[in-house]
Amino acid sequence: MRRALALAVTPGVPLGPNPRVGCVLLAPDGTTIAEGFHRGAGTPHAEAAALAEAGDAARGATAVVTLEPCNHTGRTGPCSEALVAAGVRRVVFAQPDANPVAVGGAGRLREAGVEVVGGEQVEDAQAINRAWTFAIVHRRPFVTWKFATTLDGRSAAADGTSRWVSSRAARLDTHRLRGLCDTMLVGTGTVEVDDPELTVRDEVDEPVAIQPLRAVMGLRDLDPGRRILDARAETVHLRTRDPEEALARLHGLGRQHVFLEGGPTLARAFLAAGLVDEVVTYVAPMLLGAGRNAVADLGIATIADALHLHVSDVAVLQGHDGEDTNVRLTMRPPIPQRRSA
Amino acid sequence: MRRALALAVTPGVPLGPNPRVGCVLLAPDGTTIAEGFHRGAGTPHAEAAALAEAGDAARGATAVVTLEPCNHTGRTGPCSEALVAAGVRRVVFAQPDANPVAVGGAGRLREAGVEVVGGEQVEDAQAINRAWTFAIVHRRPFVTWKFATTLDGRSAAADGTSRWVSSRAARLDTHRLRGLCDTMLVGTGTVEVDDPELTVRDEVDEPVAIQPLRAVMGLRDLDPGRRILDARAETVHLRTRDPEEALARLHGLGRQHVFLEGGPTLARAFLAAGLVDEVVTYVAPMLLGAGRNAVADLGIATIADALHLHVSDVAVLQGHDGEDTNVRLTMRPPIPQRRSA
Ligand SMILES: NC(=O)c1ccc[n+]([C@@H]2O[C@H](COP(=O)([O-])OP(=O)(O)OC[C@H]3O[C@@H](n4cnc5c(N)ncnc54)[C@H](OP(=O)(O)O)[C@@H]3O)[C@@H](O)[C@H]2O)c1
Ligand SMILES: NC(=O)c1ccc[n+]([C@@H]2O[C@H](COP(=O)([O-])OP(=O)(O)OC[C@H]3O[C@@H](n4cnc5c(N)ncnc54)[C@H](OP(=O)(O)O)[C@@H]3O)[C@@H](O)[C@H]2O)c1
Repeated sequence: MRRALALAVTPGVPLGPNPRVGCVLLAPDGTTIAEGFHRGAGTPHAEAAALAEAGDAARGATAVVTLEPCNHTGRTGPCSEALVAAGVRRVVFAQPDANPVAVGGAGRLREAGVEVVGGEQVEDAQAINRAWTFAIVHRRPFVTWKFATTLDGRSAAADGTSRWVSSRAARLDTHRLRGLCDTMLVGTGTVEVDDPELTVRDEVDEPVAIQPLRAVMGLRDLDPGRRILDARAETVHLRTRDPEEALARLHGLGRQHVFLEGGPTLARAFLAAGLVDEVVTYVAPMLLGAGRNAVADLGIATIADALHLHVSDVAVLQGHDGEDTNVRLTMRPPIPQRRSA
Repeated sequence: MRRALALAVTPGVPLGPNPRVGCVLLAPDGTTIAEGFHRGAGTPHAEAAALAEAGDAARGATAVVTLEPCNHTGRTGPCSEALVAAGVRRVVFAQPDANPVAVGGAGRLREAGVEVVGGEQVEDAQAINRAWTFAIVHRRPFVTWKFATTLDGRSAAADGTSRWVSSRAARLDTHRLRGLCDTMLVGTGTVEVDDPELTVRDEVDEPVAIQPLRAVMGLRDLDPGRRILDARAETVHLRTRDPEEALARLHGLGRQHVFLEGGPTLARAFLAAGLVDEVVTYVAPMLLGAGRNAVADLGIATIADALHLHVSDVAVLQGHDGEDTNVRLTMRPPIPQRRSA
């Protein structure tokens, strides 16, 4: 299973609406017959890839796969049928398939007389497809809210200037995190004020080949000259102020992981709705003493009502010259996640 | 020298106005004859302790000592004379003595025909007596400003409640840092509002045996019922608003390391005067969205004037239960340190 998990995260696989899956076919004596992994929407599933490589050698084999084999015909046929047809004798899988249209693979295999074992290293498999799993279970995308702040909670100086409140290393790290999501979301306010390009860019500030969707939320029309409307990536304008509605729309577009990048108004709305699943904060060792607050008024009046976050990771982002060190905290809110209706 | 440095930091030695020093006496064949370290004001210097242990065996020996042997008669006689009298042939020391009244030991030893080598592992030796060295060079105490903040730069909620903005682990860590200083300083405002005890307390919240001096700064009279005036430790009221004057007074009292604990008004005054040498910030993963700012208006209008700090250490302070994690940043301001006139 360890090998199958490693195959699932083979670098270079484009993130898409599909889960990342790895599969290893083992002969009865335990030797590896073939391996496969899913290379993104429209390509063969991991099991199909391994079966194709194995050919007749699959007869009597054990298939070790990180996700329960699917039971539906999408762009490819059901993997359960393919495994049965190839004469596979035993299937060991990690994560059960929660996708309502694909579920039932294990049952179908058992009916056909295949021995089935599920749940092995299930946490590791779920971690690989965290947003995919979350989106299926909660029927909405996973939301990561990111903000940058000075040590004293400011995002801009008194005159509004804010370039840069985060270090170069923190900005590169933000681009990396953007690239792990499939959607970036901002409010019309940020588009008006900052006119961000909102693309994933590399070390030399060039947009990378595959770009997440750019989403803008708010009732105002967007000025057609805004960078977010350029041709570098797709953009959707969600003409609503309701976070739940916006997420439902994005879910309908097959989106699983939203990177909420601001500003404070939008962040407050998502926090108030209980629709923030993860918080990533870049703290810059810088004091302003005054200026724009990084976080908007949350209607919290007394310390007992403070929004406590659980820290899951702390990283020190070192600058090139040792100066300019930023600290990144990754946290989750303690409140139970909301599921869309 | 490594052994001498280890002796210098022997645990349990009370911090006081004197530097921590270790000494090893070596026979010509390199074997250790005797060791000594300084146990605090009023006790023998490290060299004297080692010579006493060695007796006649010191004749012809090499003395390895972390600080240049002193050349003045204080509560004990000059170590340079004692080394000569004992027949020590060679002296290797790390840090030169910067104390104007004690300086000259190396010269005196050379005059008496002793071979002298200085400067070995000097950085390590200076680090042991950082505040002592700083106070001699700058003629004022070293100032560590500590503040606690939420992720969004607040020190208290909108209604003024602030218990607790830092975690238990962070509070214990603060007591540890207080114990490494010889003076804690607050403004009359903090005494009025918080009525802090301002002692160093242990795990079970009991004051430890040796307490730093408690200093309050400001023109207002102190209410005699305030906890800071209790008998648990000594307290001094500095009736001034001038940070330089306050530090000069504390320097006159033999103080070498001030732990500046608040509030924002006092911190601003020290920052503005260029009299903060180190910043320790505890960041709590907590959002308030409103409330009292952890850092006061510093008169900074635009981002280019932001006060950038150099991060020297980042520590994750884990709570007992894995929740309640705080992050401690230790930083220094980039501005050159001010020396008192
Ligand atoms: N610290 C950081 O990391 C960070 C990140 C991003 C931005 N910023 C800063 O934030 C500033 C912009 O602040 P902002 O708060 O105006 O930006 P914003 O949150 O991006 O946009 C606010 C606008 O979004 C619309 N909106 C959507 N949903 C809403 C809801 N539920 N409630 C209210 N309005 C909603 C409203 O416009 P309509 O009238 O169109 O509905 C509203 O005016 C910029 O200057 C930018 O620099 C900081
Ligand atoms: N976040 C944290 O870590 C932290 C730490 C400590 C305190 N606090 C909070 O800070 C609050 C108190 O704030 P604060 O700013 O009033 O406290 P403060 O800085 O301790 O005291 C301010 C007072 O000190 C005197 N003072 C001394 N030197 C001064 C100078 N150069 N300029 C102006 N005044 C000077 C003034 O009183 P005179 O009129 O007597 O001269 C002034 O009113 C408390 O509520 C406390 O909870 C927070």
